[in-house]
Amino acid sequence: MKLLHSKPFLSLSFFFVALFLWMMPTPEGLKPDAWYLFVIFFTTIMSIILALLPIFTASILAVSFAILSNTMDVGAAYGGFNKSFILLIIAAFLVARGVVKSGLGKRIALHIIKKFGKSTLGLGYSMVATDMIIAPAFPSNTARSGVLYPIVESLAHDSGSKIGDHTQKKMGSYLMMNSMAGITISSSLWLTAMASNPVGAGIAAQMGVDITFSSWFQAAIVPALSAFITIPWLLYKIFPPELKETPEAPKKAQDELERMGKMSRNEWITGGVFVSMVSLWALSATLGLDKTAIAFGGLGILMISKIFTMEDMKTQGDALSTLVWFAILYAMSSELNRLGFMTYIGEGIAGELVGMSWQLVYLVLIVLYVLIHYLFVSQTAHMLALFGVFLSVGIDAGVDGELLALMLLFATNFNSVITPQGSSANVLFAGSGYLTASEIYKNGGIVTLANTVIFLTIGTFWILLIN
Amino acid sequence: MKLLHSKPFLSLSFFFVALFLWMMPTPEGLKPDAWYLFVIFFTTIMSIILALLPIFTASILAVSFAILSNTMDVGAAYGGFNKSFILLIIAAFLVARGVVKSGLGKRIALHIIKKFGKSTLGLGYSMVATDMIIAPAFPSNTARSGVLYPIVESLAHDSGSKIGDHTQKKMGSYLMMNSMAGITISSSLWLTAMASNPVGAGIAAQMGVDITFSSWFQAAIVPALSAFITIPWLLYKIFPPELKETPEAPKKAQDELERMGKMSRNEWITGGVFVSMVSLWALSATLGLDKTAIAFGGLGILMISKIFTMEDMKTQGDALSTLVWFAILYAMSSELNRLGFMTYIGEGIAGELVGMSWQLVYLVLIVLYVLIHYLFVSQTAHMLALFGVFLSVGIDAGVDGELLALMLLFATNFNSVITPQGSSANVLFAGSGYLTASEIYKNGGIVTLANTVIFLTIGTFWILLIN
Repeated sequence: MKLLHSKPFLSLSFFFVALFLWMMPTPEGLKPDAWYLFVIFFTTIMSIILALLPIFTASILAVSFAILSNTMDVGAAYGGFNKSFILLIIAAFLVARGVVKSGLGKRIALHIIKKFGKSTLGLGYSMVATDMIIAPAFPSNTARSGVLYPIVESLAHDSGSKIGDHTQKKMGSYLMMNSMAGITISSSLWLTAMASNPVGAGIAAQMGVDITFSSWFQAAIVPALSAFITIPWLLYKIFPPELKETPEAPKKAQDELERMGKMSRNEWITGGVFVSMVSLWALSATLGLDKTAIAFGGLGILMISKIFTMEDMKTQGDALSTLVWFAILYAMSSELNRLGFMTYIGEGIAGELVGMSWQLVYLVLIVLYVLIHYLFVSQTAHMLALFGVFLSVGIDAGVDGELLALMLLFATNFNSVITPQGSSANVLFAGSGYLTASEIYKNGGIVTLANTVIFLTIGTFWILLIN
Repeated sequence: MKLLHSKPFLSLSFFFVALFLWMMPTPEGLKPDAWYLFVIFFTTIMSIILALLPIFTASILAVSFAILSNTMDVGAAYGGFNKSFILLIIAAFLVARGVVKSGLGKRIALHIIKKFGKSTLGLGYSMVATDMIIAPAFPSNTARSGVLYPIVESLAHDSGSKIGDHTQKKMGSYLMMNSMAGITISSSLWLTAMASNPVGAGIAAQMGVDITFSSWFQAAIVPALSAFITIPWLLYKIFPPELKETPEAPKKAQDELERMGKMSRNEWITGGVFVSMVSLWALSATLGLDKTAIAFGGLGILMISKIFTMEDMKTQGDALSTLVWFAILYAMSSELNRLGFMTYIGEGIAGELVGMSWQLVYLVLIVLYVLIHYLFVSQTAHMLALFGVFLSVGIDAGVDGELLALMLLFATNFNSVITPQGSSANVLFAGSGYLTASEIYKNGGIVTLANTVIFLTIGTFWILLIN
């Protein structure tokens, strides 16, 4: 039995499975390149889930193999690196370092600890609540993750939970995973909390289903609040922080705040930059501003002010590895989609559903829509590829259009922690060093299961009730 | 007088010059965007030359401003990040770390020191000679820089010259600058030592000037050897290493080699990976392989073998800043070119040359062709933008076609250290930490001047003699 779990054995079996899939004849109806790319992508993801390789190593080997085997051309393979929303992650990553280094992150964290810091669970709830409250003003959940991330990092630091000294599990790992999971809820709650939500509503409108800001919110509020109550507690049980009760923390935070005294020059500048950035991010859709350019500008000002320096830059290798793996996996998933693999799967599913009751069709569609997110490295790409197909299949089978449209769009958000790369909003947390890829797969999988159950039961019941 | 050199005064004056240029009416014949982008680019480059800002900070502020002022659209502004040859720099950077860490770099360096290590100048010459010998097999000088860089870094380390502990000037800064300058010579020497050389020969052929592998080499050998004799010595004088004579170094290297004993497992693996990578790079044009995919594959193998680890990755922030600044400056220069700024300048020059003697036209064309490289962030882009224009202007004015074509193509290579971003082959050295951007501007400027004088005098005389 031990042999079965040993890494060399696992790696070898894994290698033969991959080889077998590669040698298999291409399934009918698929382009050979789509099949080969699927095998590469699947192998990559599995090697990460099974913790055979770090996500960075798996990704660079995958892109190398995909190009050298002529499965992907160079343009497609490197096509993730110049995407603004991917570069935004890097810029936000570096700005977050500045916020932490300036002391401002610490000050905000201490204020939060003063109020909610009696227990780690309390901190977890307070972070998700903050996210849900600011979400309607942030049509980019990536940008929102850039706001939350430095605060979560400072909370962890100030609770003595750091990376590199084996204290990451004290509190940081839980808080990172919890905030990442929180974004699934905050993005489901508001039509404007995620860029692809209004796009999805637009597609639904073309199919005769009208979704407005308030109808979305009315439908989402009950399942989203249920998920809000459940998820931080669930993670606390399945992925417990070592430090649970900290009754003395609020008092300590108060003392520490007094010791810190007034805000320093660096904190004022960082605060000004951060508030300007966040305001411009919130207004970026209206004003037509590129969020990444805003972040680069903010970072530049922190650098001119010597708050974040070239010396600090030297140790930001994690930002580079994050850029590389995310850009590669994103490009592979996009190409898989472009080659028709996703619609092939979607149409295959539709074919299987003929003759089922609408309830069963509804259930199967939602569950498959959630699970298929293992293949996607972007919520928007997933929604654009499959929302329309799934919605029309369901309506044809007699499912209520509004119910199905809303649930699929909620699912677009609540499935996003099923993998580390499932959303660009995950990536800062996934790259924080507090979480391994396999921890995210495991806990993200459980959170996604819980979300799916909550939305399918409470959510469905509630939507049918109010309509 | 002191005020004039103080940074705040300089920064302020600089700001007003930039503002004045920005407010100026667009020169006739230029698109407004071309002019605005030129002002941004010029300001960025000047702020780097004057050491007002690090190259990374200047670049992110520039891209932020260019996008937010609507001078560049997002696609163009981030268009450098997905270029294979730019990602190659990053992959080569990380592979170089593996070569150094494995001990293989140290071993190769010790062998070189054993043979040539009596003086720093001897090491300088031996590195440039190595480069010139391997160059005909490397149509990518970026890939070649990836071969040389880890060896130069190990040479510096083993001579006790490191970054971070104020010993970088002992030897490393000189060796880095010298190898970067050496690539200008090795790339001029062979038709196949640089990707754009055969492309330029193709353009010349369309204009009736035939250049072959051997005619190129015959023309280049005398000026290139003259530059080879001059440049390492010149840099030794103007940018001296602190450690000059090391008569005991070869004996020490011999002892150290004996102490190291046989090659370790990690050295064997790294050696295998490095030799395979280098061979595939050399064959990449013939076999149609992407050099970056080869490098990612090699890096992946080093990571699977735990020679380069995710822990090592954390400290590779310099690779990230290098990627960011180079991608940004490259995109700006490309866009400036696309908007017609470069041909505008070229045509302006052509207009001024009417009625001059062919000798003067020849001189002016070459000097301007060299100087204009301040605006380019790619040797190939420069060649493609201006080689044809300059060649036809010169031929019309009575300059011998072969002489001018050869000299312009030599200049495409020997001007490439005029700025840190002047060639992708510079970037590893520029990002090494051993050199500041302003040191590269200063010493690179002097090297370019020396190259220009050598090629224009000895080179011109020689070419006229053999034809």
